[in-house]
Amino acid sequence: MLGSLPSFARLEAELGKLPGIGSKTAARLAFHLLRTSEAEVGALAEALLEMKRKVRFCEQCFHIAEDRLCAICASDHRDRGLLCVVEQPQDLLAIERSNSYKGLYHVLHGVLSPLDGIDPEDLKIPQLQQRLTTEGFEEIILATNFSVEGEVTALYLARLCRENGLSASRLAHGIPSGSGLEYIDAGTVQQAVSGRRTL
Amino acid sequence: MLGSLPSFARLEAELGKLPGIGSKTAARLAFHLLRTSEAEVGALAEALLEMKRKVRFCEQCFHIAEDRLCAICASDHRDRGLLCVVEQPQDLLAIERSNSYKGLYHVLHGVLSPLDGIDPEDLKIPQLQQRLTTEGFEEIILATNFSVEGEVTALYLARLCRENGLSASRLAHGIPSGSGLEYIDAGTVQQAVSGRRTL
Repeated sequence: MLGSLPSFARLEAELGKLPGIGSKTAARLAFHLLRTSEAEVGALAEALLEMKRKVRFCEQCFHIAEDRLCAICASDHRDRGLLCVVEQPQDLLAIERSNSYKGLYHVLHGVLSPLDGIDPEDLKIPQLQQRLTTEGFEEIILATNFSVEGEVTALYLARLCRENGLSASRLAHGIPSGSGLEYIDAGTVQQAVSGRRTL
Repeated sequence: MLGSLPSFARLEAELGKLPGIGSKTAARLAFHLLRTSEAEVGALAEALLEMKRKVRFCEQCFHIAEDRLCAICASDHRDRGLLCVVEQPQDLLAIERSNSYKGLYHVLHGVLSPLDGIDPEDLKIPQLQQRLTTEGFEEIILATNFSVEGEVTALYLARLCRENGLSASRLAHGIPSGSGLEYIDAGTVQQAVSGRRTL
């Protein structure tokens, strides 16, 4: 019956293109928006367009930014001897939320995955190489995820650091806070045991 | 760190207002849209605005429509002696998808709920009353949901039908297709037993 309602069907179709939004959720959202005031729907539409117009990537670290440099690269309050390499801007934000790091970042925008044809040149690795030789870092923290691709990427980057005479570290791998051992996968438990610390 | 990214933070906030979209999902969607082409984000924004501009409610049955009357009320191929009363446009669409009904509809846009202060005048019940006296229906199918409020509303409307000399029916209440008895609530099983049919 939506054949006679092209604008409603079109909104459902557009919403259904979003990740994790199936056709039922898309319909539910469209019906919600139908009952939402024109001003509120307009605000959502404008937010979409404004984000697309204003947000770009930092020219230095490739985090999201609204200027040439992101707020972190532009800040005077960061330790410029430390560089933390992450896969995605989301990972950077997670580290910032932890309030445990005051250095700079480099966002790769992906991980190495030769099987999918993703080589260093497809990521921001050439730009990282450039920074390693020019910015005088003391330590590089490789904070790619603990997935197969994340580990492979960290190994690749560790070699890159060594070639530039820089020490590289990796985030600690173990049991997260508040988690019972029985619910943790065997690989993580194994890492936690082999990486145990003397008290 | 999103303080320096007002347009991205604003999009996250707007997405987070949608039902069922929490702050983590809103962030995930915003990051997805960040990587989506400007044309595709524009298409979503335009679909939102166009829906709001074009979609209204049918003047006769209050289903969603882009004209004065919805496609069902305007059609020459519907049985005008049958009226099916539903709570929401979504319910109408579910019945249409079943391909089992060729009459007209009336959408209440809610259910009676005296505790929440929802009286007949807050729904499209006065307009239904008007249709019952003028359109010459033979049967009214009360297809409100089998919730407490839906049942109360159906009872209220059944009395309204009787007062207008019209017969009212209710959708069959029982075990859905493909469902095992063990997973069905006791109330539904009770209804299915009392409503059993001789083969």
